[in-house]
Amino acid sequence: MTGAAVVGLDIGGTKTVAALVGPDGTVLDRRRAPTPASSGPEAVLDTAARLATDLLPAAGAGPVGVGTAGTVDPATGAIRYATDSLPGWAGTPVADALARRLGRPVRVGNDVHAAALGECWAGAGRGSAHVLLVAVGTGLGGALVRDGRIDTGARGAAGAVAHLPAPGAERMRCGCGRYGHLEAIASGTGLAAAYAARTGARIEGREVAERAAAGEEAARTVLDRAGAALGGALAGLVALLDPTVVLVAGGAAEAMLPTTLAAYAAELPPAWAEVPLRAAALGGDAVAVGAARMAMAAQA
Amino acid sequence: MTGAAVVGLDIGGTKTVAALVGPDGTVLDRRRAPTPASSGPEAVLDTAARLATDLLPAAGAGPVGVGTAGTVDPATGAIRYATDSLPGWAGTPVADALARRLGRPVRVGNDVHAAALGECWAGAGRGSAHVLLVAVGTGLGGALVRDGRIDTGARGAAGAVAHLPAPGAERMRCGCGRYGHLEAIASGTGLAAAYAARTGARIEGREVAERAAAGEEAARTVLDRAGAALGGALAGLVALLDPTVVLVAGGAAEAMLPTTLAAYAAELPPAWAEVPLRAAALGGDAVAVGAARMAMAAQA
Repeated sequence: MTGAAVVGLDIGGTKTVAALVGPDGTVLDRRRAPTPASSGPEAVLDTAARLATDLLPAAGAGPVGVGTAGTVDPATGAIRYATDSLPGWAGTPVADALARRLGRPVRVGNDVHAAALGECWAGAGRGSAHVLLVAVGTGLGGALVRDGRIDTGARGAAGAVAHLPAPGAERMRCGCGRYGHLEAIASGTGLAAAYAARTGARIEGREVAERAAAGEEAARTVLDRAGAALGGALAGLVALLDPTVVLVAGGAAEAMLPTTLAAYAAELPPAWAEVPLRAAALGGDAVAVGAARMAMAAQA
Repeated sequence: MTGAAVVGLDIGGTKTVAALVGPDGTVLDRRRAPTPASSGPEAVLDTAARLATDLLPAAGAGPVGVGTAGTVDPATGAIRYATDSLPGWAGTPVADALARRLGRPVRVGNDVHAAALGECWAGAGRGSAHVLLVAVGTGLGGALVRDGRIDTGARGAAGAVAHLPAPGAERMRCGCGRYGHLEAIASGTGLAAAYAARTGARIEGREVAERAAAGEEAARTVLDRAGAALGGALAGLVALLDPTVVLVAGGAAEAMLPTTLAAYAAELPPAWAEVPLRAAALGGDAVAVGAARMAMAAQA
């Protein structure tokens, strides 16, 4: 591996982050801006390019890495599918469009995939070759690391833990429109919906977590059920995927971690009893750090 | 690939099969014997070696492949974990012990892993690089094929779909001792237990399937619930694993295929709507054919 720093970009629905990442995974510098999502893909790309350009003089000559919301075509670095958080993003040739703007090659991956790679490189998955990471945000995302590399699946979409059937979620609606999926209970949206069903109050998932932390019983119950569903699902996935470690990322995941851990430990089949479940460590830097790692790997 | 035929062995809890497999995956010849499971590992190995020796004169000079019940250490070809179907099998250095008996290298993998490889080579998964196979027998097994290769996971155990939480199975006991797992409802054992709970009659899972086929309502209900649980789980796993095809193998799987397909189609998120679910095609030859494939790959 070269000793030069690399720029990693994190293009999300609300914010874009560029990080200058050292050869050991340390973030040396960082730029951040709101993502102009509603202004369309060109504006989003311009913002990302501007942040990266600020950092490039301190980086080596190699590619720039990008982690972005949406399903990324592994072959072309274009967006195959994206939610409404980035209107018009589907179809955008992110790799090519940013390469033109930056004058150097660009490697693009899904943001949760990038986060998992970042955690395996410089975070809570360091030294682990087989990792399952789930990210609890507004929705529920995931990534599979196999033999140290991201498993993208056949169309770049692997890692979507959202749609596993989840006992207890039968009457709850998933982001995909079906009922009873894990995302319908274990996500920010799921917490908000369950809390509204229970109390009539419409608040965000993060506020449900805050109220639970403050000791409110209805919020606590909602959070505990979400954590139990997540922990049971993760235990089942450990048997399926046979990883060395499971990582949970995102603010809501931290809030429900004790319940998640308890359900995980209770449900894990004996043969996998020693597979740890841990909180991710890189926080808001994970995607950009992992994107930088992707760019470094492309260079090697 | 060499044009020589290869010997593949299938060592199961009840029978052992050796197949002479041509370079195109065709079974050219076949030997079969009951597995002397209760006589212990040496007897099991002797039987396997005898069947293979019968076919070796017609095979090329390369390695022999073995698919066996149990978790196989990918590095050594020894058994890390096995159920009571093969008493004493855990710890058996199958690769080394058979290599001594046969005078040539031996490659060993898990039997469901081998079946998946066989189906991808010469069966219902032909031409697919990313495949999820589930095998419904007494228990519930599975295998993940990624980029055309078996994903063994960190300890050789990947593919175990058995322990995913399954709505509807809450009060049913899994082979691992926990409750509510997919194997507790969608397996021969699960069919038998659900039928007994419903009718009081203790019959085998395969007989439940036969009674359902004959139109008995209680058996039909039990089979339909199992199929629905399996189909829903497989739809969720398609999003997680992003395969090109899903294969279901085993007699019980065939019996519940219509219900499985209906639940699968109903639950599949739109982005994966075109991923087909198919019955496996190689039947009782799948493991031996896949074992032969493993041996050929080792040679290449």
